[in-house]
Amino acid sequence: HRCQHRSTAMLDVPFLPFCAFLGTLGFLCVAMVGTWCQHWRGGFSLDGSSRTFNWHPVLMVTGLVVLYGAASLVYRIPNTWSSPKLPWKVLHGSLALGAFVLTVLGLAAVFRFHNSQGTPNMYSLHSWMGLATVLLFSCQWAAGFGAFLLPWAPAWLRALYKPIHVFFGSTILMLSVASCASGINEKLFFSLKNGTTQYKLLPAEAVFANTLGLLILIFGVLVVAALARPSWKRPDSNSPDSRQ
Amino acid sequence: HRCQHRSTAMLDVPFLPFCAFLGTLGFLCVAMVGTWCQHWRGGFSLDGSSRTFNWHPVLMVTGLVVLYGAASLVYRIPNTWSSPKLPWKVLHGSLALGAFVLTVLGLAAVFRFHNSQGTPNMYSLHSWMGLATVLLFSCQWAAGFGAFLLPWAPAWLRALYKPIHVFFGSTILMLSVASCASGINEKLFFSLKNGTTQYKLLPAEAVFANTLGLLILIFGVLVVAALARPSWKRPDSNSPDSRQ
Repeated sequence: HRCQHRSTAMLDVPFLPFCAFLGTLGFLCVAMVGTWCQHWRGGFSLDGSSRTFNWHPVLMVTGLVVLYGAASLVYRIPNTWSSPKLPWKVLHGSLALGAFVLTVLGLAAVFRFHNSQGTPNMYSLHSWMGLATVLLFSCQWAAGFGAFLLPWAPAWLRALYKPIHVFFGSTILMLSVASCASGINEKLFFSLKNGTTQYKLLPAEAVFANTLGLLILIFGVLVVAALARPSWKRPDSNSPDSRQ
Repeated sequence: HRCQHRSTAMLDVPFLPFCAFLGTLGFLCVAMVGTWCQHWRGGFSLDGSSRTFNWHPVLMVTGLVVLYGAASLVYRIPNTWSSPKLPWKVLHGSLALGAFVLTVLGLAAVFRFHNSQGTPNMYSLHSWMGLATVLLFSCQWAAGFGAFLLPWAPAWLRALYKPIHVFFGSTILMLSVASCASGINEKLFFSLKNGTTQYKLLPAEAVFANTLGLLILIFGVLVVAALARPSWKRPDSNSPDSRQ
C-alpha cells in the first residue's frame, strides 16, 4: 500500500512549472494564429474584407482560449491560498472580462465581414457551437459577478451556485477549443482551393494551421485537466473575506 | 456552514437516472447520424462511393462517442461497488474493444472512399485530430489491457498508471467529440453547395445535422463531467480481486 502512494507521488507535477508550460503553449497559439493570418491570409484591416475576418481567429484564440484559460486557473495558484480571496476574485473576474471583450470583438469581426460580403450569418455548425459558447460565457460572467463579487448574495446561494460555475467553466473551454478546431478546418477549406495551394495537397499553410489546431486542443485539454485535479484546488475557507 | 451542505446536496443527482438520460441522448445521436446519412446522403453501400463514406460518421458516432462513453462509465455504477471488480473490468475492456472495432471500421470506410475517388488521405485538421484520437485510443486500450487485465503487472505499476489511464480516458472523449463537430461541419460544406440546398441557406438537412453536432457535444461534456465527479467514483479497494 505504501508503494502505491510512492508511485502516485511520482506523478505529482508542481502547479507553477506546469503553469509556465501552459503559458508558453498559450503564447505559442496566439503567435501562430497571428502569423497564419498575417503571413498567409493577407494581414489585418477594418474594411469589411477578408482582412477584417482575420481578426476573428486571432481574437477568439487570444480571448476565448488563452486569456479564458488564464482566468480559469487563478484560484489554483497555491501561493495565493493563504492571502485574502477578494483580490484574486477581482483578478479572476477581470481576466474573464478581458477574455469576454476580445470574444465580442472577435464576433463583431466575422459579422462585419459577412455583412459586407452579403454572406448569411449563423448557418454553420461552427457558428452554432461558437455562439452557444459565447452565450454560455456571458451568462457565466454575469452570474459569477452577481453571486461572488456583489455583496448581496447569501452564503447558501454562493454554495449552491459554485459547483455549477465550476462545471460551466470547464464546459465553456471545451466548447471553445472544439469551436476553434472546426473554425480552422473550415477556413482552410474556404481558403485553399486553387492550383498548388489546395488543402488536400497539404501546402505549408495547411501544415502550419493544422498544427495550430492541435496545439489549441492540447492547451484546452491541459487546462481542463488542471482544473479537475483535486490537489490543485484552493482549500475551502469560511473566512469573512470569502463573503465579500 | 450547515446550510452550505444542504444547498450543495440539492445538486446531488443520482447516477442511474443521469445514466438513463445519457443513454437516451446517446441513442438519439446514433439514430440521428443514421437518419442523416440514410435520408439526405443516399444511404449505405460498400462500393467506394459516397455511400461507402456514409459508414464513417455512423461508425464514429456509435463507436468513438456513444459506446466509448458507455465503456468509460462502467465503474461509476454504484450497484457494482460491493461486488468483485473483475467482471466489471472485463465489461469495461469489452465495451472499449467494441468501440475500437467500430472506430477502425469507420476509418476503413473513409480511406476506401478517398482511395476509390483518388482523394488524398489525412490532410485536413479533422483527419489529424481524428487520427490522433484513434492512436491515443489504441494505446489506451492496449496499455489498459496489459496493466489491468493481464495478471503480470505489479501493484505499484497499476497505481502509477491508473491516473494516467483515467486522464486519457476523458481526453480521448473530448478529442473525439471535437473531431465529430469538425467532421459534420466539413461534410455539410462539401455536400450542400448547389441551388436551394446551399449550407448558407440553412436547408432542413443543415438544421438537422447542426443539431446532431450540438447533441454530440452535450453528450461528451456530460460524460466527462460524470467521470470527474468525485462522489461517483468507485471507492478504492485493496481486495485481492483488484489484483486479478
